[in-house]
Amino acid sequence: VAAAREVLGEVGFAGATIQAISERAEVPASAIYRRWRSRIELIEEAVAPAPPRLGPPTGDLARDLARFERVFRRALTTPAGRAAVPALLAAYQAGQTGRPPEAWLRGSWRPLFRDVLRSAGPSAVDVTVDPDAVFDLLLGSILVQAFVPTAAPRPNAPGYTVELLCRMVAPR
Amino acid sequence: VAAAREVLGEVGFAGATIQAISERAEVPASAIYRRWRSRIELIEEAVAPAPPRLGPPTGDLARDLARFERVFRRALTTPAGRAAVPALLAAYQAGQTGRPPEAWLRGSWRPLFRDVLRSAGPSAVDVTVDPDAVFDLLLGSILVQAFVPTAAPRPNAPGYTVELLCRMVAPR
Repeated sequence: VAAAREVLGEVGFAGATIQAISERAEVPASAIYRRWRSRIELIEEAVAPAPPRLGPPTGDLARDLARFERVFRRALTTPAGRAAVPALLAAYQAGQTGRPPEAWLRGSWRPLFRDVLRSAGPSAVDVTVDPDAVFDLLLGSILVQAFVPTAAPRPNAPGYTVELLCRMVAPR
Repeated sequence: VAAAREVLGEVGFAGATIQAISERAEVPASAIYRRWRSRIELIEEAVAPAPPRLGPPTGDLARDLARFERVFRRALTTPAGRAAVPALLAAYQAGQTGRPPEAWLRGSWRPLFRDVLRSAGPSAVDVTVDPDAVFDLLLGSILVQAFVPTAAPRPNAPGYTVELLCRMVAPR
């Protein structure tokens, strides 16, 4: 997995073949295929953001969301992540299958995100708002800011996203 | 451009070569290169959502946003759009250059989106909220719903996105 990350970051998605990764890892390709059914699944695991060690939420929504956003964004925009995240989404559209994106992209983060909202309490977060839908808006915001660059980016775009999300979940 | 859309929808991004598109269009490849500097630029134009004919906003924010979201989502998720949008984002990360995404992905839609928010008036939309940042959240939401499918999608996810965006822009 570490070798896959290195190769992705150095030569990109197209060059991150099982052959190239097995050479880097100094294992035979057959050893890789015993554990992963395909190159796609190995790459998914290599760029799956690991469950972060965020520590418990403080209960201050703006602060906790900002920390969550920063850590999640950094996990998706490592050199390997930049090479692989949009390429995996394109590969699915081209009919290549891997694990569901649920597994590698959201699974370990959603519970932490729910904790952030829950810890902020009802004065900051309307309990009727679906935290998973808010999480997906944050994920979309990170994808757009990382992979669909603007001509004139807003200063501190991530901070402003957090501000907008706080508005969105506030009780009315 | 129409030939590029057809080929993209039928054989995907990798197969949508200048050769394949020129054969479909029954023009020589040289004629394509006179107008587009690269395959990437031709594909960008082929999937650039055309400025929509939405008609003027009604001033009912939820209704106007729902219409905008629906038309924008459909424009990005045609067969050609599905094949090309994530693949173009991946191609940029792989060092292939085209026009800025600003030009083909946002340019013709942002003014219409600003109109939607402006028409709703200050009782529904806080004038201090940056409409371009809200637009990017909507774009991110469409990308996530279209290209990062969930295991258990929420019923009427687009409608709920619109509801969340209305909450976000509401005056506090």
